[in-house]
Amino acid sequence: MILIGMFDSPFVRRVAVSAELLGFNFEHRSWSVGKDFDRIREYNPLGRVPTLVLDSGEALVESGMILDWLDEQAGPERALLPGSGKARRDAQRFIAMTVGTVEKGIHLIIERVFKPEDKRHAPWVERCRVQIHGGLTELDRLCAAAGDSPWLLSEKISQADVTLACYCTYLRDAVPLELSAYPALHERVRRCEALAAFGKFYLPFDAPAPKETQDA
Amino acid sequence: MILIGMFDSPFVRRVAVSAELLGFNFEHRSWSVGKDFDRIREYNPLGRVPTLVLDSGEALVESGMILDWLDEQAGPERALLPGSGKARRDAQRFIAMTVGTVEKGIHLIIERVFKPEDKRHAPWVERCRVQIHGGLTELDRLCAAAGDSPWLLSEKISQADVTLACYCTYLRDAVPLELSAYPALHERVRRCEALAAFGKFYLPFDAPAPKETQDA
Repeated sequence: MILIGMFDSPFVRRVAVSAELLGFNFEHRSWSVGKDFDRIREYNPLGRVPTLVLDSGEALVESGMILDWLDEQAGPERALLPGSGKARRDAQRFIAMTVGTVEKGIHLIIERVFKPEDKRHAPWVERCRVQIHGGLTELDRLCAAAGDSPWLLSEKISQADVTLACYCTYLRDAVPLELSAYPALHERVRRCEALAAFGKFYLPFDAPAPKETQDA
Repeated sequence: MILIGMFDSPFVRRVAVSAELLGFNFEHRSWSVGKDFDRIREYNPLGRVPTLVLDSGEALVESGMILDWLDEQAGPERALLPGSGKARRDAQRFIAMTVGTVEKGIHLIIERVFKPEDKRHAPWVERCRVQIHGGLTELDRLCAAAGDSPWLLSEKISQADVTLACYCTYLRDAVPLELSAYPALHERVRRCEALAAFGKFYLPFDAPAPKETQDA
C-alpha cells in the first residue's frame, strides 16, 4: 500500500504512526497538496491527504476511514480503537474532543497562512483562541483523570493516545502555542512522542507560501 | 435519550434523521450553541452540538460517534453504515467526500456570518468556492454512477444517502448555492428530502447574529 501526503499534516501523521504501531509496511509519497495537487487527484478527486492506495488499487480518502481499515486488517485484539461498547465510546469521545480542538486551531492557521494581516478579523481570531484554550483545558483534565495509567484508556496504547499526540504537536508547531500550559496533556504527548513510531514520522510545520500549503 | 442541538445544523439533523429511520425515540432540546452555551457545556465540555445524552447519563459528543452508537444499538442487519469490508469503505468514501465538501462550505459561511465585509479576503473566498464546486462535481459524478439504484449504495437507504442529503441541503440554504447545477446529486437529495424522516427534522438556516451562530 502507498500512503500519500506529507508528515507535517497531523492527519497524514496519525495514519503513518498507526500503521507503524500495527506493524504494516507502506510506501510513502511525500506529495504536497499545493504543487502535487494534480497527482493526488488521480487517486483522490478532492486532492486531499492522507490518501491510502491499497494493493488492489482502491483508494481510501480520509484519515478516519483509513484508521478504520487498518484496525479491520489488524483484527479486534490489536485494533487501536476498541470495536464496540463503552471502551469504544470512551476512545471516540477523547478523539472527538481532540478533533474539535484541532479544528479551531486550523481556523487560526488559515488566518495566518492564507490571509494578509489587514484581512485578519481580531474578534474571530480571539474567539478561536478561546475555544482552543477551552478544548486543551478539557483534554488536560481528561489526561489528569487518567492518572498513572500507562496509556489514556488502558494498559495499551490506543487511537486516543495517537490522535492526541499528533494533533497537539501540530497545534504546538503550527498555531503556534505552548503545551506546557496544560501539564497532564503535555506529559501524555511527551510520552507518545518519545516512541520510535512517532519520531519516525515527524516533520516540523513550516508555514508555506499560499499555493503550497497543507489543505485545511 | 436526549438529543441536544438545533436542526439547522446538518450534524444535528443527520443524527435525528438516522435515529428516526432506525426507529429510535428521543427527546429533543433545541438549544443554541450561542445563547445556550452554558447549558450545553453541562453535557459537552466543548459546548458543541449534536450531543446525545443516553439514559445512563453518558453523553456522546460528536455526530460520527453518535451514528456509530445508533448503528451498534440497531444491530448489523439494520445499521445505516455497513459493519466491514468493501461495502463499509464505499459508504465511508462517499461520506468523506461529502464531509470534505461541507467543510469548505463552512469556511465560506464563516466569512459571511462572522466577518465584516472589509475583512473578507477575496482570494480565500474564491479558493473555497472552487473547492466546493470540485466536491459537488465529484459527488454528482458518483450519484450519476449509482444509476437507477433506489439508493446510493444498495437497495436500502444508507448513511451515505442521509449525510449527502442533510449536508447538501445545508449548503444550498447556508452558503447559499444552487444544487440544480449538479443534476444527479440534486435528484438524490430530492429523493431523500421527500421522506417523512427528513421533513420532520428540517429547520431552514437563518444567518444569526455572531453570538447566536451555529458552531463551525
